[in-house]
Amino acid sequence: MHVLIIGLGSMGYGAALSLLKQGFQTTGYDLNAETLNKFEADGGHSITRLEDVSQVDCVLIFVVNAMQAEHVLFQSALDRALNPQALIINCVTLAPSKASEMAKCMHAKGFQYIDAPVSGGAAKARAGKMSIMASGRPDAMQRAQPLFAAISEKVFHLGDEPGQGSQMKLINQLLAGVHIAAAAEAMNLATALKMDLHEVIEVISGCAGTSWMFENRAPHIADGDYTPLSNVDIFVKDLGIVTDEATKHGVVTPLSVQAYQLYQQATEAGLGGEDDSAVAKVLAAQSGTQLPGTES
Amino acid sequence: MHVLIIGLGSMGYGAALSLLKQGFQTTGYDLNAETLNKFEADGGHSITRLEDVSQVDCVLIFVVNAMQAEHVLFQSALDRALNPQALIINCVTLAPSKASEMAKCMHAKGFQYIDAPVSGGAAKARAGKMSIMASGRPDAMQRAQPLFAAISEKVFHLGDEPGQGSQMKLINQLLAGVHIAAAAEAMNLATALKMDLHEVIEVISGCAGTSWMFENRAPHIADGDYTPLSNVDIFVKDLGIVTDEATKHGVVTPLSVQAYQLYQQATEAGLGGEDDSAVAKVLAAQSGTQLPGTES
Repeated sequence: MHVLIIGLGSMGYGAALSLLKQGFQTTGYDLNAETLNKFEADGGHSITRLEDVSQVDCVLIFVVNAMQAEHVLFQSALDRALNPQALIINCVTLAPSKASEMAKCMHAKGFQYIDAPVSGGAAKARAGKMSIMASGRPDAMQRAQPLFAAISEKVFHLGDEPGQGSQMKLINQLLAGVHIAAAAEAMNLATALKMDLHEVIEVISGCAGTSWMFENRAPHIADGDYTPLSNVDIFVKDLGIVTDEATKHGVVTPLSVQAYQLYQQATEAGLGGEDDSAVAKVLAAQSGTQLPGTES
Repeated sequence: MHVLIIGLGSMGYGAALSLLKQGFQTTGYDLNAETLNKFEADGGHSITRLEDVSQVDCVLIFVVNAMQAEHVLFQSALDRALNPQALIINCVTLAPSKASEMAKCMHAKGFQYIDAPVSGGAAKARAGKMSIMASGRPDAMQRAQPLFAAISEKVFHLGDEPGQGSQMKLINQLLAGVHIAAAAEAMNLATALKMDLHEVIEVISGCAGTSWMFENRAPHIADGDYTPLSNVDIFVKDLGIVTDEATKHGVVTPLSVQAYQLYQQATEAGLGGEDDSAVAKVLAAQSGTQLPGTES
């Protein structure tokens, strides 16, 4: 099976490496030349234009947002690179309606399509242990099985309709986005109370106040290390999708709206490319607190 | 060692049972006669007035709030019930400054005092597996050790100053309160999207959006079961403490403020005595969604 991966960011690169390890013929495509060189060095095949690949059986899409995904699907040379009935696995976080629409267009061209957003972060992606929230027709899901096995620890089959996977990702991002902001708020208050931030992490991780995101992101704040694993701008995008979708259904989401504003404020403060835990810097600036590693 | 427990609510009752199991001479005091009868049936000794107990070596306080704790410490017959140098372990969630103040007064009377808020919920309390965030003088901490071993799985020693335990509890409640509200927000949106709520719980619990509170409370919403394990009013109280303390230090806590408002709205809607996950009902009413078990 010839697999093409489009978008070698933190999640895509991890998936590509996992596929290589499992012996898949894997071609990587990205706009970043340095990333492509690294992928070649890691044993992959890379291309700088989609025109330079053909006879692809399966394409995994790991670009950043809906706009890029639409460009890949509708305005690129992808169609010509794909074999007839090729399998398209779209791992981008999208509005559910967008995922349905893309699936409809791709089905009309005779391709198979799976709506397959992922979760777990860069480290899990690299270990082949991401989680996949997948929906699509049974024949497509069956064909994807060996690929999913190579890149993930858990695959959730959420139904036959593309869009159902994206709905679940939406719920996950609502919670993840609010939890990161809550972790930032807690760490900023703990700083003001002159508490030992590493002790806070140790204790809270064993108490009812913990979350996956608290355990993952609070150490970044305690260490003052905002090297981006997943950056602020991703949550500006994802909480934008969450609040748009909620508004469309007349649903109130006051915490998501509040967290969304924090991520937007962080971006406006020039922190968009930093780790998403940098929302703590916005709170610190508004509170007059001095977080570790941010001494001026 | 003769131990007195004041307040046999969900946490206090669990602690009292654990002490009985470990062979401590345990007296229980509560305003609820039914609870006292149950405690007698479970093998404990109960009293209906503090005047009816004496020669107490250690008192564990598990009342609901600061006002009740102040009443117990300053306006009751407790002093006369306690042996000289008795150990007072205060497990109530309090503002850190309040905990310091109480400790000062009790030290002045020659008693030992530990600031010891707890976490873990009713089930863990009953299993002797709560977490304790303790601070106090080393001699008091050492004397409390066998009691803590009987009622808890983890004891965090957070310093020699009463108030340090309450600071950590404050951070825990900030996170716990926001996470419950976030879980309610996510489940309400999932309801509007016509998702299978039990599937949402299964998937999210394996993804980065999970939290201790999501895994514990989201099932209440999916099952439409708002039997109070910990009720809405407790978070009106605890997020009140969080936001007051933050304001006192000039610290912004936008998510806590937002969650606090939701709990207050729930109380105003007559839901104060229901499980804290009933904040979902406030969101549902504002969104026109129909949560499980709330058919009118």
